[in-house]
Amino acid sequence: MATTATGGSADAAPRVSVLGLGAMGSAIARTFVERGYRTTVWNRNAAKSAPLVDAGASAAATAAEAAEAGPLVVVCLLDGAAVDAVLGSVEGSVAGRVLVNLTSGSPAQARAYAEWAAERGAGYIDGKIMGDPPYVGTPNVMFSFSGSRGAFEAHESALKELGTIAYHGTDAGAAAVEFMAQVAVGYELLIGFLHTLRLVHAEGVDVQEFTGRVAASMAGYPPLLASMGKAVKTGEYGPDLGSLNVQAALMDDMIAHRESLGVEAVRMREVKKLMDRRIADGHGGQGFSSLFELLPPRG
Amino acid sequence: MATTATGGSADAAPRVSVLGLGAMGSAIARTFVERGYRTTVWNRNAAKSAPLVDAGASAAATAAEAAEAGPLVVVCLLDGAAVDAVLGSVEGSVAGRVLVNLTSGSPAQARAYAEWAAERGAGYIDGKIMGDPPYVGTPNVMFSFSGSRGAFEAHESALKELGTIAYHGTDAGAAAVEFMAQVAVGYELLIGFLHTLRLVHAEGVDVQEFTGRVAASMAGYPPLLASMGKAVKTGEYGPDLGSLNVQAALMDDMIAHRESLGVEAVRMREVKKLMDRRIADGHGGQGFSSLFELLPPRG
Repeated sequence: MATTATGGSADAAPRVSVLGLGAMGSAIARTFVERGYRTTVWNRNAAKSAPLVDAGASAAATAAEAAEAGPLVVVCLLDGAAVDAVLGSVEGSVAGRVLVNLTSGSPAQARAYAEWAAERGAGYIDGKIMGDPPYVGTPNVMFSFSGSRGAFEAHESALKELGTIAYHGTDAGAAAVEFMAQVAVGYELLIGFLHTLRLVHAEGVDVQEFTGRVAASMAGYPPLLASMGKAVKTGEYGPDLGSLNVQAALMDDMIAHRESLGVEAVRMREVKKLMDRRIADGHGGQGFSSLFELLPPRG
Repeated sequence: MATTATGGSADAAPRVSVLGLGAMGSAIARTFVERGYRTTVWNRNAAKSAPLVDAGASAAATAAEAAEAGPLVVVCLLDGAAVDAVLGSVEGSVAGRVLVNLTSGSPAQARAYAEWAAERGAGYIDGKIMGDPPYVGTPNVMFSFSGSRGAFEAHESALKELGTIAYHGTDAGAAAVEFMAQVAVGYELLIGFLHTLRLVHAEGVDVQEFTGRVAASMAGYPPLLASMGKAVKTGEYGPDLGSLNVQAALMDDMIAHRESLGVEAVRMREVKKLMDRRIADGHGGQGFSSLFELLPPRG
């Protein structure tokens, strides 16, 4: 009798289909194959299926055939246009199945796909991935999911094969919100960091050594962020980094220094302006986190 | 025979003077007293000396008298205007001594003070402090120093009493550069974080729970920063967060999402514009760190 890597008979092994075999889709399909899932794959360019078939997957001739191969259909494509095309071709094949869409996209797209799936009798889970294809199948890739709770719970064990997973609720857009927000914090840090490398570079400081010191100081941020998150949640703004009265004076020094070197100071000027408004409103004894009150959209 | 906390005779105990007894200056003076230094203090408003005198410090009637009390004169005042006033009054008392100025200020100010001191036969060390007064005397306060190497080495053991210390070279402005650059990276992260809290708040996500997840994800940044610092140093820009071609599409989604909610997108639009320029220049296969090449001041 044929057996799988999980030790069960091939007939008892869970089935999964993977539509889209780019770097990420291929890594996902390979992980399922390696964990003993009966994995059916499909890609618009069929050549991408070959290494997965060699590893033990079955290749479907069409997206619809792949979708019909099992109860769990994972979609991982280039973008929303590709998802629209594939959903169009599997429209008659998804009833009673669960679609897990891991393609990049907005919360609004995710919500629209959930509606599309519901109208066709399919469950829908949206997923967003933070991490790189080589690490799929390890805890170092973070998958955020949202959408149908029943569908998520039914397939949670399969999704857990892929990495560290989190479920963000029944709003199908929630995973994309989480992803975009997490990624935004990263981009804010990183573009500010690059501008600051221009500052130290202009001052003759070794950018790599400076980076090492910044990396070391990162350890101080998680507790600071936690206290700021709490302050924003409760509206009780202690003098976190010092009072705004004190911080505003430092900001002037920083802006003047950056301008003297030709380094951009967009955020520093914005922060100074916000601090000045809070001080003028009588909140100069509060901390940085209180600037939240002035940011759009308010309320 | 009178003995000090360090176990030596009072006459053999090292002498230090502290000018300026705000929250930080008082914490510094108190630390020196507690570690057995013969500490002379001065403050414009003399009432601030009382608790330190109770603890074992001597109060000087004038800044000049305080400066003349020992070889090491620590200055910790509100701002540059206060430093200018105090330096004017100690001008005839500093020859042969070492001034350590811990007052907030710019690299240019630090360099001017170093010149002033050199003309009067004094050594000058500029210092900048990251941390809060209650933690002075523990490793949780970081002191960056720069200026005369000989002066620093002569008084390194005293300065080490105050916290974790680092010496950034003979350019007196280097400590201020380090401070402003480190603080800038922090402000960039934190203002971006606050804007992103507006985003998740507008989407109905609990800001404190989201913050907890951001804090957890901070662990991934030190290695990423290290690889980016190396890329900028060497000019070899691998596809760090994915290629710019892929990242630019994500940036469009993020901008559209933020605009749909009324959340500001200043940095996201800037990043997208920079990515588009790199892609147009044929560098779409490189990563985020390559945007450094486009930032002012170039070269």
